[in-house]
Amino acid sequence: MRKSPQFSTRIERLEASALRTIFHAVSAPGMISFAGGLPAADSFPELPWKILQGRNSYREMLQYGASEGEPDLQELVAKQLAADGLHTDPRRVLILSGSQQGIDLVAKLMIDKDTEVAIETPGYLAAFQVFSLFGARYLPFSPFNPNLLANSERASEPPGLLYTNPSFQNPTSHVYALPERQLIADYCDDSNTVLFEDDPYRDLFYEPCDRTPICSLTRSASWVYQSSFSKTLSPGLRLGYLTCSEDLYPHLLHLKQASDLHSNRVAQQLVVSLLNEEPLASRLMCLQANYRQRRDSFDALLQTHFSDIANWQTPRGGLFFWLQLKPAYDLDLKALLPDALHEGVAFMPGTEFCPADATDSLQMLKGSMRLNFSHAQQDEAQVGLAKLSRLIRRHLE
Amino acid sequence: MRKSPQFSTRIERLEASALRTIFHAVSAPGMISFAGGLPAADSFPELPWKILQGRNSYREMLQYGASEGEPDLQELVAKQLAADGLHTDPRRVLILSGSQQGIDLVAKLMIDKDTEVAIETPGYLAAFQVFSLFGARYLPFSPFNPNLLANSERASEPPGLLYTNPSFQNPTSHVYALPERQLIADYCDDSNTVLFEDDPYRDLFYEPCDRTPICSLTRSASWVYQSSFSKTLSPGLRLGYLTCSEDLYPHLLHLKQASDLHSNRVAQQLVVSLLNEEPLASRLMCLQANYRQRRDSFDALLQTHFSDIANWQTPRGGLFFWLQLKPAYDLDLKALLPDALHEGVAFMPGTEFCPADATDSLQMLKGSMRLNFSHAQQDEAQVGLAKLSRLIRRHLE
Repeated sequence: MRKSPQFSTRIERLEASALRTIFHAVSAPGMISFAGGLPAADSFPELPWKILQGRNSYREMLQYGASEGEPDLQELVAKQLAADGLHTDPRRVLILSGSQQGIDLVAKLMIDKDTEVAIETPGYLAAFQVFSLFGARYLPFSPFNPNLLANSERASEPPGLLYTNPSFQNPTSHVYALPERQLIADYCDDSNTVLFEDDPYRDLFYEPCDRTPICSLTRSASWVYQSSFSKTLSPGLRLGYLTCSEDLYPHLLHLKQASDLHSNRVAQQLVVSLLNEEPLASRLMCLQANYRQRRDSFDALLQTHFSDIANWQTPRGGLFFWLQLKPAYDLDLKALLPDALHEGVAFMPGTEFCPADATDSLQMLKGSMRLNFSHAQQDEAQVGLAKLSRLIRRHLE
Repeated sequence: MRKSPQFSTRIERLEASALRTIFHAVSAPGMISFAGGLPAADSFPELPWKILQGRNSYREMLQYGASEGEPDLQELVAKQLAADGLHTDPRRVLILSGSQQGIDLVAKLMIDKDTEVAIETPGYLAAFQVFSLFGARYLPFSPFNPNLLANSERASEPPGLLYTNPSFQNPTSHVYALPERQLIADYCDDSNTVLFEDDPYRDLFYEPCDRTPICSLTRSASWVYQSSFSKTLSPGLRLGYLTCSEDLYPHLLHLKQASDLHSNRVAQQLVVSLLNEEPLASRLMCLQANYRQRRDSFDALLQTHFSDIANWQTPRGGLFFWLQLKPAYDLDLKALLPDALHEGVAFMPGTEFCPADATDSLQMLKGSMRLNFSHAQQDEAQVGLAKLSRLIRRHLE
């Protein structure tokens, strides 16, 4: 008979990701899923196997590699970041096994039990999962009004870390205007708070909007900027990257070593080849056109099925619509999820996008949901949204 | 002017991996390296791109995937483990982004500040790096005599975790006989210590020897067994796997989610194809023959250059020779490393293979070094060992 071992105290704070929990249900054949942040499968590139096979360095890619990443890829990332307004040294680019790894590394660097972290609520749930694991307490602020940060009365001391999705935020798709970006940069400078800017959706914009990296606006705060190839190339390759202020890089590099030695070299070389054979800009034009059209069709379907019961803003970028039931309707959408999955349609309840112990936020978010528009085909979206609308109406009665 | 941010307390305990620190020096053209655990580049397989391209599921592999790993690969791993004597459910196999990730996940699960961990000293340095990061204290035991564990007077309470490389240990290449394996299993059962068996070298044996998974010998202790595709297929693909007792699996799965969502799917599919197109057993026969021959040549070179000043056992498996200067010679080999690198030859000083604060062990290990025999070509090994021998003799004078 096995006695329970003594786990670390952090395991009391470990939760399954809500999204990962329903991953298998959501991946079932026939399921119409608005739940994940899945890119459109028809947007994935052909992988340039042949280029790789022709290279002299082919076998070298199968050997152990540098923790920092492949130098070619570090260079390409630094060049792209400079074009986006963030100037960094290629030797200060760290290639990640997906940007989730960056969250783990920054949490290891910054968070002890009771370290305060300023977060957007609603915000990115898989970041909260990691921050909570390491013992974070939260100073929440609204992604629609980050100005509240400056007026917060709750915090006796400034937070150690501020985490933000500045462009087409997950889950609201809100994008900060330049004054909001400057406000966050100033806050971090003034309070000596480390800025952690997680920007995986920045390239998925469908109308002009400001996307200046907030890190480029800081004067003295330490900062980490990260993004991903998951939304622009392929999530299955599991590659992302970060860059950061000089004081943080050696620690993040050593934490990366300790986490997985280095990232997959074959995948890195495939990404280098993809970026070289077709400049990212031209690839993004197609992707944006594709997603813009999906967004508009989805918006029209929402008008048909939800305009009388819910409010939303048409997202200017990213992968999600953020719906809120009109104030007249009091319904906890999370309670509907099992029925929805049973009927073959998946969504993400708004309450998943705040830390589990944030009772005020939970109350505020129970009439909200996040709907992904990039994955389902038009006809599926039509069927799925009609089902979801009927289900909600049944529960409202 | 940037003020230093408040890092987490664990960062005080963060050290660069000694091996990773010299990685760039070791990778320089012309360097003869006995330092890493690099597999022979001519042992790497041709990657079966074509099989992958022909699959209907090709695009699916570029999408987000399950945290557990690809079901095909989970099945293949469980089948192989059963053949090796460890019966497990394929649904309790967790595919890892290299086995270093397994060390990170188990440390997160088990180690708080001052959690005691029993470790082989000398032992695997990158495991100590992670355990120390999370605050471990150590109960060291000798890989040559694990019986000391039972007699230890130092520990007031049994350790929370026992970490072992049972087969062709890194760095000593020692392999436990069955009674030693049983002893460790009994110790974990009796003291309710979680057994963490890290077995990446198990398939690299050059003579018959017992390789029974210690986990299969436990009765009641919780356990984790892990291994890697880095030594048998390719390190650059960054894939490993673990399986564990039922009580640990859900936690390790959630920790994996939080660390990187899931492992590279394209690499997983390549490994599935490689394992299906050529059964591992036949691939291993070639690999073993290749490495056995390299070992024997290396042994002969050592006889020529080191027999009068050092002792060693010919390893029965794995990738390393473990040399100890004869007791008459008092020399700290670590002090020679800069000169050796300057002369174009790299090795790992024995003192790297114990935790940084283990002063007794450091003293004991300063005349030891680990020499990898799998990477350098025969002519390089000849030149490198002659150089190293001359360098040591110069310092002995």
